[in-house]
Amino acid sequence: MSDGIITYEGRTLCILIERWTMQSTSRSSELGPLTVMEQDTDFIPDLPEGPLSMYRKQASFDWKKLKLVFDKPEILKLKLKVWKTLEADVLFHNGDKTHSVDEQKRLAMLQLVKYLQYKFYTDGVANNNYKKKTRTMMDLNEAMAVLNLNISVKFALGVSLFANAILSLGTERHLPLYEAAWRGEIFSCVALTEVGHGSNTKKMRTTATYDPCTHEFVVHTPDFQAAKCWIGNLGKTCTYALLFAQLYTADGTCHGLHGFVTPIRDPKTLLPFPGIIVGDMGEKTGLNGIDNGFIIFQQYRIPRESLLNRLSDVTLDGEYETMFTTPEQQLGAALENLSAARVGIMGEGTNACCSAVAIAVRYAAVRKQFGPSADSELPILEYQLHQWRLFPYMAATCALKVFVADFTDQYLECVERSNSGESIEDLPASVSEIHAMVSSTKPLVTWTCRDTIQECREACGGHGFLKASGLGDLRNNFDASVTYEGDNNVLVQQTSNWLLRQWARVLDGSEVASPYHTVNFLADSADILKKKFRGQDVTNNEFILDAYQWLVCWLLRETHHRLLASQELGEDRFTARNNAQVFRARTLSLVYGENNALTYFWRRCNSRELDGRVKAVLTKLHSLYGLWCLDKHLSTFYQGGYATGSTLADLVKEGILQMCSQLKSEAVGVADALAPPDFVLNSVIGKSDGKLYDNLQAQFFHNSGAMERPTWWSEIAPKPLSKL
Amino acid sequence: MSDGIITYEGRTLCILIERWTMQSTSRSSELGPLTVMEQDTDFIPDLPEGPLSMYRKQASFDWKKLKLVFDKPEILKLKLKVWKTLEADVLFHNGDKTHSVDEQKRLAMLQLVKYLQYKFYTDGVANNNYKKKTRTMMDLNEAMAVLNLNISVKFALGVSLFANAILSLGTERHLPLYEAAWRGEIFSCVALTEVGHGSNTKKMRTTATYDPCTHEFVVHTPDFQAAKCWIGNLGKTCTYALLFAQLYTADGTCHGLHGFVTPIRDPKTLLPFPGIIVGDMGEKTGLNGIDNGFIIFQQYRIPRESLLNRLSDVTLDGEYETMFTTPEQQLGAALENLSAARVGIMGEGTNACCSAVAIAVRYAAVRKQFGPSADSELPILEYQLHQWRLFPYMAATCALKVFVADFTDQYLECVERSNSGESIEDLPASVSEIHAMVSSTKPLVTWTCRDTIQECREACGGHGFLKASGLGDLRNNFDASVTYEGDNNVLVQQTSNWLLRQWARVLDGSEVASPYHTVNFLADSADILKKKFRGQDVTNNEFILDAYQWLVCWLLRETHHRLLASQELGEDRFTARNNAQVFRARTLSLVYGENNALTYFWRRCNSRELDGRVKAVLTKLHSLYGLWCLDKHLSTFYQGGYATGSTLADLVKEGILQMCSQLKSEAVGVADALAPPDFVLNSVIGKSDGKLYDNLQAQFFHNSGAMERPTWWSEIAPKPLSKL
Repeated sequence: MSDGIITYEGRTLCILIERWTMQSTSRSSELGPLTVMEQDTDFIPDLPEGPLSMYRKQASFDWKKLKLVFDKPEILKLKLKVWKTLEADVLFHNGDKTHSVDEQKRLAMLQLVKYLQYKFYTDGVANNNYKKKTRTMMDLNEAMAVLNLNISVKFALGVSLFANAILSLGTERHLPLYEAAWRGEIFSCVALTEVGHGSNTKKMRTTATYDPCTHEFVVHTPDFQAAKCWIGNLGKTCTYALLFAQLYTADGTCHGLHGFVTPIRDPKTLLPFPGIIVGDMGEKTGLNGIDNGFIIFQQYRIPRESLLNRLSDVTLDGEYETMFTTPEQQLGAALENLSAARVGIMGEGTNACCSAVAIAVRYAAVRKQFGPSADSELPILEYQLHQWRLFPYMAATCALKVFVADFTDQYLECVERSNSGESIEDLPASVSEIHAMVSSTKPLVTWTCRDTIQECREACGGHGFLKASGLGDLRNNFDASVTYEGDNNVLVQQTSNWLLRQWARVLDGSEVASPYHTVNFLADSADILKKKFRGQDVTNNEFILDAYQWLVCWLLRETHHRLLASQELGEDRFTARNNAQVFRARTLSLVYGENNALTYFWRRCNSRELDGRVKAVLTKLHSLYGLWCLDKHLSTFYQGGYATGSTLADLVKEGILQMCSQLKSEAVGVADALAPPDFVLNSVIGKSDGKLYDNLQAQFFHNSGAMERPTWWSEIAPKPLSKL
Repeated sequence: MSDGIITYEGRTLCILIERWTMQSTSRSSELGPLTVMEQDTDFIPDLPEGPLSMYRKQASFDWKKLKLVFDKPEILKLKLKVWKTLEADVLFHNGDKTHSVDEQKRLAMLQLVKYLQYKFYTDGVANNNYKKKTRTMMDLNEAMAVLNLNISVKFALGVSLFANAILSLGTERHLPLYEAAWRGEIFSCVALTEVGHGSNTKKMRTTATYDPCTHEFVVHTPDFQAAKCWIGNLGKTCTYALLFAQLYTADGTCHGLHGFVTPIRDPKTLLPFPGIIVGDMGEKTGLNGIDNGFIIFQQYRIPRESLLNRLSDVTLDGEYETMFTTPEQQLGAALENLSAARVGIMGEGTNACCSAVAIAVRYAAVRKQFGPSADSELPILEYQLHQWRLFPYMAATCALKVFVADFTDQYLECVERSNSGESIEDLPASVSEIHAMVSSTKPLVTWTCRDTIQECREACGGHGFLKASGLGDLRNNFDASVTYEGDNNVLVQQTSNWLLRQWARVLDGSEVASPYHTVNFLADSADILKKKFRGQDVTNNEFILDAYQWLVCWLLRETHHRLLASQELGEDRFTARNNAQVFRARTLSLVYGENNALTYFWRRCNSRELDGRVKAVLTKLHSLYGLWCLDKHLSTFYQGGYATGSTLADLVKEGILQMCSQLKSEAVGVADALAPPDFVLNSVIGKSDGKLYDNLQAQFFHNSGAMERPTWWSEIAPKPLSKL
């Protein structure tokens, strides 16, 4: 949560950040070894002939080559292997009806156990190459998440997050726990959030007080508001918790939040240990395979060794020792470790967009309604209105998918290089920029995901309201992602704080602290802010990027002014920030995120290895996403004097339609490139065969109990309605 | 669907429209006898003391008086009576877990039967006063819908819509069916939509061919795409269908879509009759108490008398007779009858907004997070960002609630006067304007409802993701309303068509055909379009209304220009409309709807009988809703030259914050006025006692199985994870 210190595997992340990345972030250069080479696409299964073939033939590019832009060959191969294995196992088939909450939890646990047995992760874990290992874990997570988000979340919380935390926060004495977690002997949860506090982590009130007489920590929950809650896996199944509690020494001093490995249940019987009240929170809007729980500790004793003591420790006789000077730093170190989960959420979010868009585009290509004459009906994909609704989300999906993939790689590559021991300059700057990027990208992706799924559902009309369409479950499961692992509205303020600090440097005349070059253009802000719209071609990708730089500069300058004005009014820093930032903090952070997405995506569009035809369609998608983003901020361009008169607005709106029109023949190809296999997509209206009505017929006729009379009629029939 | 002809109770709605309404639509005049008089508020139960009391005391007005602005006393009394009765009946208690789909259907049917037994509707039905009768039905529908949308939809489709259709489309011979429906002997469905066609009603393909030898209609489904589907009540429970099919005479002539009363199942056994394949479509994203079904007819014979023959008939020997000149008119007459359901949906939608806003505002008033110093935490309601997220939706809810209530009254009052036999001028104009208003308001309300629920869910953080918060179910159940009874994206085009016709009249120099005065200002468009922003106080309500008139005029002129340009390019009418309208049709129609909402709401703010303090808070809510709407269209004001420079944008954005700030102390009072009783609201985080954490604790501890070990652990335990 703090943007000061980030730790990984016991070292501050500071030492993980690489100078080399600085060369690779200008617009047109490339990002290290590129993902798409002279390609073997044969391993990608062909799609069946059918009603979609007409549009497939219209596409100007090879959809398999585009697919390899979104997932590198080795990643796609891994995912295909996982999906093929799970498709062959009936336990992993998502049915067409929602089970009871208890049954969902049972199935999730069974599936998780089986998933572990498949040992997909074995190579990854055995591998000592950090980047390869972690990327593999993330790819596996994505493969599982797109099929069943419950299992991937359950696995992450129960195994991988826990194990990683042991490595980064613990010491040698905790290593057996790391091993045990990976072997599945320990099944865990991460217990931070409390009933009364989520975003304000400093205010967590569960305490762990050291007792020098017994060499134990006494864990205690002062009242119900301090009960840990929303903890995934805690409700029914976990045996250990990675517990975050305020560490007190016997002298009554509070040393801030620390991590403790805390036994919760007997692994054999699942009976909670004495001194613990633990329960399941009950049904949620989605993700009901996860047993989110609450826990109250009543003077519950755990050994001194439970403390994850790499960064801070308590000696046997109760002295507190730490490498930090303030509890805030300790807090930052303890929590930042969890923020890798946000990168995982970005990946999951972009994949959810892929599924939603694939369903809606394929549906639009085969669904006909109305037409120019009484006898002819057009696929709804042919309608400008429908393109205008759907294609911007398709473009956003492509942009964010590429951006998140490259950002993830960049992040992991840095960590890997750092592990090799190279020295890194600009340490705090790099840490802060990474944090700012994550804090804007997670909100950008999850909010875009929310809107994409909703528009796709509406674009599929009533049939999109069928559970079997897959869209309702997508929405309900991903809804939580705007809140968990950092509420979006809190995260964006961290980005705007960072941006404001950079702006202050610009005003000071000092160099912008942007080793990743996401805001190095701020140095030219004086010139950028003088720019005016001169009637250029707005579909031009470089124009869009330039306009975005103006937008970031202008919003930043305005926010800064308001902050100053508030402070001059004598408002305290908290109130001033609160009042100044609301105005544009959210917009500013999202605009920064969009600018990053557009920049990363454009860099990939210009990669030398890219197939020419694929490049052409990506360039159009980049234009469309850029124009659609610009359109949302049009009033700001007028407000700030970048444009006057109707030309910019007219051209942007025309440009969106023009790009939509040009993408019409490409859309099904793009959808094929985005879509996972039918088994994973699991949508009766989005299957790759395009046989919409055959598939619906099968669904209608064969859903469970479709043709049965209600068994409960006898209850009602004896008191027939006619007696009323 | 056609905007030509509307029928009601066998007469065209044309004769239902009243001249008198013309006097009552200017901004500041009043709407007939007003709803809020010197008021008895004693019948409204007090709210419990608790953590919300602090904010309640800050409110400047009496929340009970505001409540009577949203629901007239007689309406509120009726609703309270219904809710009190149902609260005392455990069958109507919404639990905290989702039952299986089959159990949901069973409960919905049991609840419906019990609901009918309570005979709440008896007075209404017995009453011969049309307005009173129908308004009572609508109020009962609203009371039921906000508690359980399944039951209200099931009742509407199964009883009231069917019965009304019999009255308006049928003749004397069908009256026994009307009686039977109200007595509950016939339980029905309305079968229009087919698998292959929803919005394009002309293309329905189920046929009813008259056989003069047997004096029967032979109903037939040519293929699966022509199967009726999405038909509520059809899946399991209905015994009759109001079936819409293409009527063919023996000579092979198709006479268009007609309504037929069609037996589906034996009412005793619920066995479908031979010649019918009927089934349940399976699970949906929401509304799973409704058994949506599909049906395939195989040369299924029904008597000649099944035809609802008020407007068109087939003689015994097979001659077709009609009062219309084209099948399109017949189609319009047959379907427009169903559009009253859209008015019902508006009412349900505004009530859903009331519930969501009440939950989120109360939660924000008791949930504390962060603060200016280490020791103090503020309720999140105190944060500008939170106000900025939430209060515009609160204002929108108030505006739409008042607008829809008054529009509904106006509509019904007209119908009633017409029934008295008075003559009405401007017949087709009135019909078209009503249709345009409905076609813009249903999308405006349902989309606002969708966004309100979502923002409220996010504003409640993780706790908003609990099923027991009520927000997830609200969203999933109301999600369908943007699609059913006319897909929003199709409806808005009907409004824009009407607006374009009015614009053409302006250009012709003829009078605008707007008996309801919703666009009579178009006559002054030349002057309106010359207006420029001169730095006025943007929070001024009259300014907002003036700005909206400019917006409607400008968007209309632009859309018209584009339509002309497309036609000049030689595009056919279909393509030209498609290409010209997409640009602004949706925006244009929603802006028209917003303008109506603001105008109606403002009229009520100025009602003489209004309590002064209530008026003051309503005026602020009007400002906020207006500014929030303007903000969404800011770029258009710049594009059209209404404003230049930053002033308008600055003032609008500042104005929103200013109104938010002024409404902070009022918000809980407004929420109390909007909220139904706790039993109906059914939200653990939105209860009127404000005891958030006590209520959460009870929920956590007592949800079903909260403290139980998983019964299925034995399945997994014998193969412990350690063996992996």
